[in-house]
Amino acid sequence: MERRCSVDELHHFIVGLLEVVGIGKTSADITAQVLVSADCEGNESHGVLRLPIYIENLEKGRFNRNPMVTAARTGSGTAVVDGDNGLGQWVAYRAMETAIDIARESGVGTVSVRESNHFGVASYYGEMACKECMIGLVLSNTPAAMAPWGGRTPFFGTNPIAIVVPTSINPIVIDMSTSVVARGKILYAAQHEQRIPHGWAVDKYGAPTDDPNAALKGTLLPIAEGKGYALALGVEVLAGVLSGSAWGPDVGWMYDEHTTPVNMGHFMMAIQVSRFLKWEKFLERIDEFMAAIKSVPLAANVSSILIPGERRAVTRLERKLHGIPVPVAIINQLNQLASKYKVQPL
Amino acid sequence: MERRCSVDELHHFIVGLLEVVGIGKTSADITAQVLVSADCEGNESHGVLRLPIYIENLEKGRFNRNPMVTAARTGSGTAVVDGDNGLGQWVAYRAMETAIDIARESGVGTVSVRESNHFGVASYYGEMACKECMIGLVLSNTPAAMAPWGGRTPFFGTNPIAIVVPTSINPIVIDMSTSVVARGKILYAAQHEQRIPHGWAVDKYGAPTDDPNAALKGTLLPIAEGKGYALALGVEVLAGVLSGSAWGPDVGWMYDEHTTPVNMGHFMMAIQVSRFLKWEKFLERIDEFMAAIKSVPLAANVSSILIPGERRAVTRLERKLHGIPVPVAIINQLNQLASKYKVQPL
Repeated sequence: MERRCSVDELHHFIVGLLEVVGIGKTSADITAQVLVSADCEGNESHGVLRLPIYIENLEKGRFNRNPMVTAARTGSGTAVVDGDNGLGQWVAYRAMETAIDIARESGVGTVSVRESNHFGVASYYGEMACKECMIGLVLSNTPAAMAPWGGRTPFFGTNPIAIVVPTSINPIVIDMSTSVVARGKILYAAQHEQRIPHGWAVDKYGAPTDDPNAALKGTLLPIAEGKGYALALGVEVLAGVLSGSAWGPDVGWMYDEHTTPVNMGHFMMAIQVSRFLKWEKFLERIDEFMAAIKSVPLAANVSSILIPGERRAVTRLERKLHGIPVPVAIINQLNQLASKYKVQPL
Repeated sequence: MERRCSVDELHHFIVGLLEVVGIGKTSADITAQVLVSADCEGNESHGVLRLPIYIENLEKGRFNRNPMVTAARTGSGTAVVDGDNGLGQWVAYRAMETAIDIARESGVGTVSVRESNHFGVASYYGEMACKECMIGLVLSNTPAAMAPWGGRTPFFGTNPIAIVVPTSINPIVIDMSTSVVARGKILYAAQHEQRIPHGWAVDKYGAPTDDPNAALKGTLLPIAEGKGYALALGVEVLAGVLSGSAWGPDVGWMYDEHTTPVNMGHFMMAIQVSRFLKWEKFLERIDEFMAAIKSVPLAANVSSILIPGERRAVTRLERKLHGIPVPVAIINQLNQLASKYKVQPL
């Protein structure tokens, strides 16, 4: 059971709630935009679903309601952003704005971010760069969920990598975690008494398992064995070690009972296309590139080759027109918050 | 059967041969360094083994013996390098030098490279950045060997990604192709009449196969299914489409009979650590990070967790001391060249 909410309706609702718990107008507006964008493109696990936990953390003071997000320019191509423990969406948005400003001036802007929180969909910030005729790169560490290759307890997060490329149509959106699956998928299997495929996770002894309950006590596996481990490690270095944020198991988890800041770290880049190729020439080449990929002969039982980002572009268009389907269970949960904070329910 | 050659012996031999076919002193010296470094660290498939094919391409004029490698600065953080169809090692070396110079000034140097050739081990250039207290990033496109996900004919190369991070001991060296295996492994299985694991490649109809001969007529598979496809695509955009080089199936293959330039493209970055964190603080954190990874409890039947780059550091040390084992078949092949060009044999 679900109900379709319009983009505006959902946006307005989120802003209202965030303002009531003490978030500033601009920051509430940006956070709502990032959340609704996730729901709109089919990334519901990073959408409005997260609002209750954000509110809870703002309420108990684990997130800072009034952060002073600062960007210190440290070179003509670089800056260091301190998120002051604000909402991750707001911090990340400001960081990418900084990277874009720098890139406009120097051709490339490289920004590390410390003292941040869960920022939702990584590619959102990459798309900001695209709108400025830039390629966006976004990396983040996340709470420990995955062992290093050969280990059996969680150390790395699912450490996402996003690369977003402008084209004359929809951007190419590469946005992937470095684990085979998100922990949520294993949780779902456990709740529905299903087995999971071998290769998703290992049990607490580090042995392969298809039992989701054993997997939940163990650890997620990286994509492509040692290669995914290496990629997750690379992300942790750039987003965590280099930024001065927490890294590895020290990254906080907003769902637990601790009160210390999460201190997540990000790494962001904006690369101005026109410093490498005339913009028109690039567009011509990238469009031709996408067309060439789509015209590769198909494997058996495949109906078309997808360019990363296509599916979400279609979903986004459809949901902008017809509304976002939100499960009734989530609407009820959100409306409980609405009632508690005396804002208009959904 | 193999013979141990010292680093100096091999270096001297390569320089001698390259000079005879018309390569300048500095460029021959750098190319030899990159090749010997590959053999020294155990990446033999990118070492002196490649010398005969380079010589052949220089001889027939497919590679340019006297390239004018130019670096055009296009912003305080960016440059565009044109390799003028020179040896890939020389072009890539000059490109990373440029990135490092820019990063010293601006904090980050981002360089795209066009008109290049096969450059050997990607991480070599990343290690150049490490020596300057920078993190190095190296991407390259390579000749078509891998279908996009859902396709059945080669389009992308094995498109490597290298990230090299300085530490107070050996650098962390992440250097991986985005295909499950190199084509060479399938060739080896075919020659030895072995089956290959499912998941390495598909046949010419795009169907899974464990027959190496069928696989050789088909295409390699990306790591982690659609995720590896997305990564290979991202590399192709940055190294190929953005640089103005050839991309996809238009990248030339130095082993075929064509005479048109290969026109490979690269993307390189040097990131100066001290713009983000004090150098000493970074070293402290990265060393602690590595120690923490190594102390994660081990999975069953695992004797230790490796940090990417550890194995090659050990091999390098051992081979510097005791020489590089070179198969006699390769020594014979090299000595035939030596005899043809009247240089001292190995």
